Amino acid sequence: MTPTASDIRNAVRRQKQDVAALFAALSAGSRVGDGITRDSYGAGEEFAHQLIAAHAVGMGLETRRDHAANLFMTLPGSNRGAPRLMTGSHLDSVANGGNFDGAAGVIAGLVASKALQHLDLQPHCDITTLAIRAEESVWFQVSYIGSRSAFAMLPAGALEAKRVDTGRSLAEHMAECGASVDAVRRGDASLDAGSIKAFVELHIEQSPQLIEAGLPLGIGTGIPGNFRYPAVKILGEYAHVGLARRFRRDAVIAASEFALGLDEIWRQSEAAGRPMAFTIGRFFTDPREHALTKVAGELIFSLDVRAYSAAHLSELEAQVLDLASGIAKQRGVHFEFGGRASAEVAPSHPQLVGKLTDCAAALGVASMPLASPASHDTATFTVAGVPSAMLFVRNANGSHNPREAMEIDDFLEGAGVLTAWLVGEAAPIQRPQRTR
Amino acid sequence: MTPTASDIRNAVRRQKQDVAALFAALSAGSRVGDGITRDSYGAGEEFAHQLIAAHAVGMGLETRRDHAANLFMTLPGSNRGAPRLMTGSHLDSVANGGNFDGAAGVIAGLVASKALQHLDLQPHCDITTLAIRAEESVWFQVSYIGSRSAFAMLPAGALEAKRVDTGRSLAEHMAECGASVDAVRRGDASLDAGSIKAFVELHIEQSPQLIEAGLPLGIGTGIPGNFRYPAVKILGEYAHVGLARRFRRDAVIAASEFALGLDEIWRQSEAAGRPMAFTIGRFFTDPREHALTKVAGELIFSLDVRAYSAAHLSELEAQVLDLASGIAKQRGVHFEFGGRASAEVAPSHPQLVGKLTDCAAALGVASMPLASPASHDTATFTVAGVPSAMLFVRNANGSHNPREAMEIDDFLEGAGVLTAWLVGEAAPIQRPQRTR
Repeated sequence: MTPTASDIRNAVRRQKQDVAALFAALSAGSRVGDGITRDSYGAGEEFAHQLIAAHAVGMGLETRRDHAANLFMTLPGSNRGAPRLMTGSHLDSVANGGNFDGAAGVIAGLVASKALQHLDLQPHCDITTLAIRAEESVWFQVSYIGSRSAFAMLPAGALEAKRVDTGRSLAEHMAECGASVDAVRRGDASLDAGSIKAFVELHIEQSPQLIEAGLPLGIGTGIPGNFRYPAVKILGEYAHVGLARRFRRDAVIAASEFALGLDEIWRQSEAAGRPMAFTIGRFFTDPREHALTKVAGELIFSLDVRAYSAAHLSELEAQVLDLASGIAKQRGVHFEFGGRASAEVAPSHPQLVGKLTDCAAALGVASMPLASPASHDTATFTVAGVPSAMLFVRNANGSHNPREAMEIDDFLEGAGVLTAWLVGEAAPIQRPQRTR
Repeated sequence: MTPTASDIRNAVRRQKQDVAALFAALSAGSRVGDGITRDSYGAGEEFAHQLIAAHAVGMGLETRRDHAANLFMTLPGSNRGAPRLMTGSHLDSVANGGNFDGAAGVIAGLVASKALQHLDLQPHCDITTLAIRAEESVWFQVSYIGSRSAFAMLPAGALEAKRVDTGRSLAEHMAECGASVDAVRRGDASLDAGSIKAFVELHIEQSPQLIEAGLPLGIGTGIPGNFRYPAVKILGEYAHVGLARRFRRDAVIAASEFALGLDEIWRQSEAAGRPMAFTIGRFFTDPREHALTKVAGELIFSLDVRAYSAAHLSELEAQVLDLASGIAKQRGVHFEFGGRASAEVAPSHPQLVGKLTDCAAALGVASMPLASPASHDTATFTVAGVPSAMLFVRNANGSHNPREAMEIDDFLEGAGVLTAWLVGEAAPIQRPQRTR
């Protein structure tokens, strides 16, 4: 007998105390100062993996780590060979971040698995919750390290990337967390698209669009692609404060014109109904050279640009380069763009979006379609060819900061939709009624 | 018998080899990497003071240091009690600066003194060349330390200012160079306006206006006043890269709009024939917080604003504050201006400017009037009530950098004009012809 919407809601909502306690334990163990720091392949992330693994073992799930130390937590299906359903997210965070970005998606997978256990349902295929490693690119300046290692899609050279705080390589950090660096290096895979029926990642929303709309849930329509220049250098000429305006080659003024030019391109793109984002996160004159009475001859900045179609991204990159070259000519400066990284656009699987929307409606959870403005491991699954989609839970104050504020009730709404989807997809067989 | 223009030119030009050798010795002893570093009240400046003092002693000048370790080098006049003529400049430099900013004015005083010796002229009053301490405000974030100490005009609290590189106080650094910190603290003076007939400072030009005009010499018409905010903080909100544009409180974009707004105010002021300058020398996101995928919540910058009338400065300060408050409102950020420093406008003494212009014409040195865009110790003399003016020597590549490029021939033209002025002002008596 298929469980009703009400059965599913109850099986999820009865976990409220346990869920709050698990989030609290996770926070307590990875708190540094005011915020949460779960450093990728470092002590903070490792703590989270051990806590979550212990919880999964307690639930009776099969747990194992792959060669990249990603954690697989599986509720076995009746047909172990059938393509499995997957969910999950990452457990790392930025430095001084919040408790929910990443972790919410892992805990949602455990809540859904537990709900199936409460409902006495055995899925016909395996349902695996993944706790993924190293999604945050701030640590090694490489994105999706864990999920791309699982699909043997890690870019060449990534293992030699240095962590920005320790200066030690990804290979060293991975080895310390028990990963098999040799297996990662030779391109072993722990996941292949053919054996995965679908992947759904739950995540807190990073923009307050759901807050603004007054809705607890967004159904992800796609993940933007991006191009990134982690360290663009503007070279002008250091000069005495007395240098007249017409002779200056001021890196600060050139950089300001560039930043404001990008902001204007963004404004126009949005006005034309084409979502995108520019971010200049780092922006600084050289601390060894800059001074109160010296015209700045150099400024370094990082640039992250994201959009929802390959064509739009190409167009934006051309605009960025045009803008720079116009400013270079006018201001007598030179732009050195340096290294470039990029990620493909990852649209959600349309049928999957439809199913999740139906599940939300069936459970009475108000939702809206939402283009994710941020990068997520789901993009790796999409690019690898797995039908994928995302659920976004309402969250105040953005993410990547200590003030992330997801309500547990909203989280349970999202976990309920995830559970309903798994129940629908896994065509579960109800176990014979136990005698009490 | 008064020397002719030709006598004066010859008495100066015959020193060319010695002058080049003295500049070379100064450079060799204060070179750090590619540039010149003569740190205020530090090893670099102290070396320069010792070299110049030794040179002056070799010339037979009377030398002494005052309570702030400024160096006085005097060619005695026939009437020691008469108000004296003074010239000179500072010997310190910015870090990684050039060899001429400051030092040229000290060496010019020695060249003029030597020329009087060559001409066998004894001035009727003392002619003192000053080697001033700590003019560059980059080290202690306090300007004119040496000259203001000499006039007992050092602002309260300056002795406690910390040097930006060593973190140690001005008082400690002064004591190490043999200054009497107690005397500075109680406001002793080594100079008073009543006993100084006039002060003329020779300095390299910092803007390439003379290069552009094809002239070796500028006659300074005045030194700008300024107001400075060494560390303005823009506080926005750190946020995930996924935050939509309309929700962002981006410190980088706000700062860029501010910098570009200042540039536009400057452009308009120049177009209206009102010279001024804005400089944002330091401009940086917080290295402990900023990241590729994080909207910047904080940016710190320094601001130096200079103009040639008190009214214009007030007007500019109002425009700066208005600009900031408009941006704060529009971008949802907050400006914390922090500490403020200022210096009065110091116009040159009109009659002195006339005399220097006449001297240049008499020697056949092509010159033009020039508003100094930079700060100079001359401002201290002007504010103290001493009739003062400046001579600017053509110089390519600006100053405060290792590529300062003053030609010795141009320098000697300037030193010639200084000499001619001293000869005219000091009504010298020719010594009885020596028998050979």
